[in-house]
Amino acid sequence: MANSWGQLFRVTTWGESHGTAIGAVVDGCPPRLPLSEADIQPDLDRRVPGQSALVTQRKETDTVQILSGVFDGVTLGTPISMLIPNADMRPGDYREVKEKYRPSHADYTYEAKYGVRDWRGGGRTSARETAGRVAAGAIARKLLTERFRVTVVAWVSRVGTLSVECDPERVTRDEVDLTPIRCPDLAMADRMIATVEAARKDGDSLGGIVTCAVRGCPPGWGEPVFDRLEADLAKAVMSLPASKGFEIGSGFAGTELRGSQHNDEFYMERGRVRTRTNRSGGVQGGITNGETIFFRVAFKPTATIMREQRTVSVAHEDTTITGRGRHDPCVLPRAVPMVEAMTTLVLADHALRQQALGQSK
Amino acid sequence: MANSWGQLFRVTTWGESHGTAIGAVVDGCPPRLPLSEADIQPDLDRRVPGQSALVTQRKETDTVQILSGVFDGVTLGTPISMLIPNADMRPGDYREVKEKYRPSHADYTYEAKYGVRDWRGGGRTSARETAGRVAAGAIARKLLTERFRVTVVAWVSRVGTLSVECDPERVTRDEVDLTPIRCPDLAMADRMIATVEAARKDGDSLGGIVTCAVRGCPPGWGEPVFDRLEADLAKAVMSLPASKGFEIGSGFAGTELRGSQHNDEFYMERGRVRTRTNRSGGVQGGITNGETIFFRVAFKPTATIMREQRTVSVAHEDTTITGRGRHDPCVLPRAVPMVEAMTTLVLADHALRQQALGQSK
Amino acid sequence: MANSWGQLFRVTTWGESHGTAIGAVVDGCPPRLPLSEADIQPDLDRRVPGQSALVTQRKETDTVQILSGVFDGVTLGTPISMLIPNADMRPGDYREVKEKYRPSHADYTYEAKYGVRDWRGGGRTSARETAGRVAAGAIARKLLTERFRVTVVAWVSRVGTLSVECDPERVTRDEVDLTPIRCPDLAMADRMIATVEAARKDGDSLGGIVTCAVRGCPPGWGEPVFDRLEADLAKAVMSLPASKGFEIGSGFAGTELRGSQHNDEFYMERGRVRTRTNRSGGVQGGITNGETIFFRVAFKPTATIMREQRTVSVAHEDTTITGRGRHDPCVLPRAVPMVEAMTTLVLADHALRQQALGQSK
Amino acid sequence: MANSWGQLFRVTTWGESHGTAIGAVVDGCPPRLPLSEADIQPDLDRRVPGQSALVTQRKETDTVQILSGVFDGVTLGTPISMLIPNADMRPGDYREVKEKYRPSHADYTYEAKYGVRDWRGGGRTSARETAGRVAAGAIARKLLTERFRVTVVAWVSRVGTLSVECDPERVTRDEVDLTPIRCPDLAMADRMIATVEAARKDGDSLGGIVTCAVRGCPPGWGEPVFDRLEADLAKAVMSLPASKGFEIGSGFAGTELRGSQHNDEFYMERGRVRTRTNRSGGVQGGITNGETIFFRVAFKPTATIMREQRTVSVAHEDTTITGRGRHDPCVLPRAVPMVEAMTTLVLADHALRQQALGQSK
Repeated sequence: MANSWGQLFRVTTWGESHGTAIGAVVDGCPPRLPLSEADIQPDLDRRVPGQSALVTQRKETDTVQILSGVFDGVTLGTPISMLIPNADMRPGDYREVKEKYRPSHADYTYEAKYGVRDWRGGGRTSARETAGRVAAGAIARKLLTERFRVTVVAWVSRVGTLSVECDPERVTRDEVDLTPIRCPDLAMADRMIATVEAARKDGDSLGGIVTCAVRGCPPGWGEPVFDRLEADLAKAVMSLPASKGFEIGSGFAGTELRGSQHNDEFYMERGRVRTRTNRSGGVQGGITNGETIFFRVAFKPTATIMREQRTVSVAHEDTTITGRGRHDPCVLPRAVPMVEAMTTLVLADHALRQQALGQSK
Repeated sequence: MANSWGQLFRVTTWGESHGTAIGAVVDGCPPRLPLSEADIQPDLDRRVPGQSALVTQRKETDTVQILSGVFDGVTLGTPISMLIPNADMRPGDYREVKEKYRPSHADYTYEAKYGVRDWRGGGRTSARETAGRVAAGAIARKLLTERFRVTVVAWVSRVGTLSVECDPERVTRDEVDLTPIRCPDLAMADRMIATVEAARKDGDSLGGIVTCAVRGCPPGWGEPVFDRLEADLAKAVMSLPASKGFEIGSGFAGTELRGSQHNDEFYMERGRVRTRTNRSGGVQGGITNGETIFFRVAFKPTATIMREQRTVSVAHEDTTITGRGRHDPCVLPRAVPMVEAMTTLVLADHALRQQALGQSK
Repeated sequence: MANSWGQLFRVTTWGESHGTAIGAVVDGCPPRLPLSEADIQPDLDRRVPGQSALVTQRKETDTVQILSGVFDGVTLGTPISMLIPNADMRPGDYREVKEKYRPSHADYTYEAKYGVRDWRGGGRTSARETAGRVAAGAIARKLLTERFRVTVVAWVSRVGTLSVECDPERVTRDEVDLTPIRCPDLAMADRMIATVEAARKDGDSLGGIVTCAVRGCPPGWGEPVFDRLEADLAKAVMSLPASKGFEIGSGFAGTELRGSQHNDEFYMERGRVRTRTNRSGGVQGGITNGETIFFRVAFKPTATIMREQRTVSVAHEDTTITGRGRHDPCVLPRAVPMVEAMTTLVLADHALRQQALGQSK
Repeated sequence: MANSWGQLFRVTTWGESHGTAIGAVVDGCPPRLPLSEADIQPDLDRRVPGQSALVTQRKETDTVQILSGVFDGVTLGTPISMLIPNADMRPGDYREVKEKYRPSHADYTYEAKYGVRDWRGGGRTSARETAGRVAAGAIARKLLTERFRVTVVAWVSRVGTLSVECDPERVTRDEVDLTPIRCPDLAMADRMIATVEAARKDGDSLGGIVTCAVRGCPPGWGEPVFDRLEADLAKAVMSLPASKGFEIGSGFAGTELRGSQHNDEFYMERGRVRTRTNRSGGVQGGITNGETIFFRVAFKPTATIMREQRTVSVAHEDTTITGRGRHDPCVLPRAVPMVEAMTTLVLADHALRQQALGQSK
């Protein structure tokens, strides 16, 4: 279903941007995993509005409450329901949106699909919806860390025209969080911050790229044919608001190489099968090979800008609209925890699918 | 499940490259759609080995037989089972593969996952598996054409370092099929053919990009949150062998623009809501807006090359391997029908999902 | 997944009996259906504890709150999240259950499955979990009533050894609710009430049968092979706590007839295909034929009794246990809204599945 | 989807009664299970037409061919495609069925649903469809036997008014197969055979009951809430042609007991938690408790009888129809392998779901 992810580790999210609350239900988390709100809140805090001058100033604490599925500090194996109240709602900011479709937003398409829409802050189309994903992803992360020793870390590698490549084998979450822009290259981070501030002053917005690395994944996760790991990762991050592209390993640039330049030769290292290069990005034939998985996600510039734009009204007349409300001049810093959340959800699901086979060679 | 695609228009594929046969079962195709093998074979013929000097010379006719689900020339609403016999099997070509993992193939990862593998031509990991998808996609295409007037066309827009942009609003299947490389720009097609032939003589291989356009899609297809249309498209094409990247609309290049440059303004045209530009690629918030959908898919150079490469054996010793058997020096021409097939499968599924809502505003 | 029901009209329930709250998320409800808490509360009130002397005296109002998916009084097409706080929790009643497995409860099996359990009132195994189903079922009922004119009504047709047959074509909800035992035959209702009160005084419990009728269903709902309508109905009601049997139409008694006695002959009635008898129970080959659907569900006597029983402890020693806490001496009256809820969920799902085919002959 | 069963061990069946062939695809079978056609054919032989004078005399050998998923005598973890050709087709027997709806068959409902139907022998609605299930069930049985030491055995416990109870702890497949009626009580078997022969001579048909036992199931299989094991078993067998009822453990008869009579007390036996009685039927709260699972399935008398019956034509006129073709006067003997097949499919799926949790207390 549209609002659920995963076959075995399954999350369902719900909620509109300016409704009573948003939340998520996780079904399929294995039992006896230690869990409390304290495991989830830090990930939400990285996604929360207002955390820096670079992002929307909507005032939400995004405080999560676990309503079920945890008892005496451990998971029960039953659904884990999480609730995040909405606090700082200003539907009045959106009166104009009730009457007009914002360019490059989903106002028009939702109305075309459903014949009705919640115009308050975009309703379900708002990136606020991703809070539920991040909460669920935090549980997946806990499972991956404790049961499988897998690490997921993402960072900003481009803002507008400013790009930097960091080593997927080495970047740590602490490095990422040193600056509000979440680029672990500090010199570049400063430049990125400056360019975001310039865009904001212009009433404009910027896009960019998030790179994500998964370290410690054992060989054998992923499925043949349709549920290849890279296919699930692609769907996962392409389901995030504003994402426009995905590439894994050598990606688009790899299309310019010849096979003799591109192939990853195998060799033995201390009894383990390794590859000398990693243009595959840790996945071959849809299944992990034990090398670090890494991929990049393109995010378009935020659609809401503080400028007048031409558009049409719900009555189907040409008109103009000017951005109001509180918005991100650049979605990238907050996209980092979103990409990590979707990645952990994909991996947790595939970890359980592999366990289902009951393999022990 | 790993070998099935779709929620309502659902295909399950089966078969190994050098087994008895390969095939697909389509469950959920609406009843009373005119259908026979003649609707399916042309798409298979575009994917078949040996169709030109540019692709593998394995001799298969890929003749499809419908075993169920069709009666008196129309679909019954019951599962449509299709069978394609394997004919030209030469497992002897793969004796070395039994003992060694081919670089950048899935030999190692399948063995890591399952503890067993069919080493004859890669078994299930072979691109031969996609014949089932193409057969199923032909049924989806028939449904889209007859019931929804939607057109899907893909073409080769890059081979190695040779790139060309064609207009997604205009490219036709006839233009695409004018040359064996399937690039509708004929001058570029000649250059691409030459570069593939050069790579083949070198015993090497090339990658490239397929661009795909969907025209005539009504507004309102796609789902919120996880099953956004672009997310399903991304998963669909990233599940194809050798694909390494996906981008829709402005894609990775769009990350360098500002919002004021990137947004697609709405306007009215003959009573219909249109956008002046189409950087969104026909999808906003995961749902079609009625503009042409277009996206690009990166394919790495074919992993099999006719050169010696270093690798490891199944006994975990360092060794070398040299490509044998019949392989594509460039997967791109045959990737075109594969991308179209996955695209039609995604759209047929979402068409039925939209019908399920019973909407009539 | 274990805690979700339905392919297109999909409900996920969550919550433990003595946790913070219980609830449900409905994904896939079509948009623009008028909906508020007032549509849901009446069904919950029929399931609520303490509604009569015949049922458990736990004091809950089961007041439902809609948290998402509804705006300006109509559904949005997005997930509808519903929350029901737990109020009258007395975990102290269950201290003994922490140490011992209650006979014919799920304490032992949950611990065997998960290695952990919430012993407070049975946690997730409590019939309290069904409140979420009833809330979701009320939305399904609204959809069935408003969009398809389908009526679902259930009633108590047996308590212990007291049985009565009522006409599935005629029983109304008002008749059912005339007495707290929910048997529309008033004379029998009085006898049933007396027998329940006698069992309660004995510290004992009773089982019985709920019969359910669906009227107004058009021909053509249901699916071939595995998702036959009667198969989905069977699963739906056999997933309710304490249910032990299901039969549709002629059921077990029909096995004693010959085909010539059992077959339902067709005839024309005012342009409509009808059957003279209805031993099929409204379903043939898994698909509705337009006649009234009716089936019966067996519920075992409540497992909790106020008597000493032999059992074993979590330390695996033989011991005894005596029922405590507040329990239903007979689950039947409260099973009526549960059976109706599961039936409406099945039908709403199949209604949308039929719509997905886009049929208009 | 309608033609698929299972979440992890998933079977998709296809085929019409008088089409080219029928078959099944099993996706999710764990790798390295020894498997060949010789493991599957014996189960098909128990379902095959013409095996005795008691069943339809259609001449089919139902010879199964494995087309994929098995290599060097073991499963690969990839889809196992199985094909069973149709041989003895006599569509001419069904010309009248093209024009008229057979009473208590699915001719009318399929036409109502799809606007088209394959009238040759009922097409997809024929019990011939179950051959694919039996083939898939044989693989599930192999998995259950070899990996989990679970035994599934079913038998005929009623034909018409002749009933017998056999001990679920003891009946063996060899005993069941001693007589063509598949009732392990030999004296009763003789009487049942005589009554079937009498019905056949009258051109009439009989119904009955199949009882099924599952022995050796470990505690902990099954899921909470909707996917309770008994719910999945109920759906599984209620999806078989002609089934009208399901009851597990004490079933409908248990509704007449009081809780003090019905509860299964626990006790310790050689370090294992056991129950003194087994009215629960091996399942408590939807999860196995380690005791033998047993349940009963009601089958109506075969709808096809060799007598004239009143019905309506496809042109919606009152008319009559007389049975032709080759049919079972009593479906029970052939229902035994069908019930076993569905039971093994349910259990194999739940076995893998439990493995997915990665539990080791």
